[in-house]
Amino acid sequence: MPGTPDRLQHAALELFAARGYEQTTAAEIAQAVGLTERTFFRHFSDKREVLFHGQQSLTDAFVAGVAEAPQTASPIEFGLSALRSASGFFPDDRRPYSRMRQTVIDANPALQEREAHKLVRLGRALVDALTARGVDDLTADVVAQLSVMAFGIAIARWIRTDEDRSFEDVATDVVQRVGIVVRELPR
Amino acid sequence: MPGTPDRLQHAALELFAARGYEQTTAAEIAQAVGLTERTFFRHFSDKREVLFHGQQSLTDAFVAGVAEAPQTASPIEFGLSALRSASGFFPDDRRPYSRMRQTVIDANPALQEREAHKLVRLGRALVDALTARGVDDLTADVVAQLSVMAFGIAIARWIRTDEDRSFEDVATDVVQRVGIVVRELPR
Repeated sequence: MPGTPDRLQHAALELFAARGYEQTTAAEIAQAVGLTERTFFRHFSDKREVLFHGQQSLTDAFVAGVAEAPQTASPIEFGLSALRSASGFFPDDRRPYSRMRQTVIDANPALQEREAHKLVRLGRALVDALTARGVDDLTADVVAQLSVMAFGIAIARWIRTDEDRSFEDVATDVVQRVGIVVRELPR
Repeated sequence: MPGTPDRLQHAALELFAARGYEQTTAAEIAQAVGLTERTFFRHFSDKREVLFHGQQSLTDAFVAGVAEAPQTASPIEFGLSALRSASGFFPDDRRPYSRMRQTVIDANPALQEREAHKLVRLGRALVDALTARGVDDLTADVVAQLSVMAFGIAIARWIRTDEDRSFEDVATDVVQRVGIVVRELPR
């Protein structure tokens, strides 16, 4: 059985999608899974945070990917390892959930801002992880942001209604395209 | 003499830096330049937006860079043209202002979220501009986000207290590093 934060998260998403984010209160989310508002606030600081419940685990997965890469890895390979490690979060059966979440976020500017900042924070965590592996400052910035960028583009494509490839396949496609595009840079 | 929005923006920044963002009201900003709160709200929807006054012009500069590139340009060259076009916004004498603005933003999570989303919106405008130049969907996503990413890394470095190179020099350095990093991608 999923833990309380997961249950609250799923209930919240259903309510946000059905009634609208603004129209749903923390008390209603808690009620939907037989809990009190007080319990809700033990897990989340506000109703917005319930949509970002997985952020820390996702960040941890990216960071673990950097930590696990062999010492002989090039900087970009640290980034690829991070991306592969995060792919585990997006099995096919999660796609309907991710689509519903995106629909809720798209309907609310404050949620879009929070979502954008989530990726900024992910990038910062990656910079730290890369620096810890001995990658220099500017290269760490570049690799971290390339990884976050590839992740962001891949997620946006993976949740399209006409997309049925796995997250990993979509991400591989994005990374290859980055290679093709950047090889045209004048030296 | 600068226009009313510019005057309000500069006054706001001084007040935010001196007293804190939360502690400053729209009325106080208006007063500082001899205007009424009502005039303030004729130009900005709220005090937060005063910090993002240049966003549309910056976006326009990026988009103009894509539009101006020769038809023979490769996708990445459209991106480079966009970045060069935007560089004009960051002459050396703007650096103290940009530093002050960043200090205000760094102190406030809601401003950080808004700032992150600014770059997301810039990316979307670039995707449209690239698509209009005949660049395919995925390549447009990649080039747009590479351009925004290089811009973001360059700005963050340009405003460091120990940095005195021009924005264009910093940006060139970032772009070169992207090339070096990505050339290590396994084919």
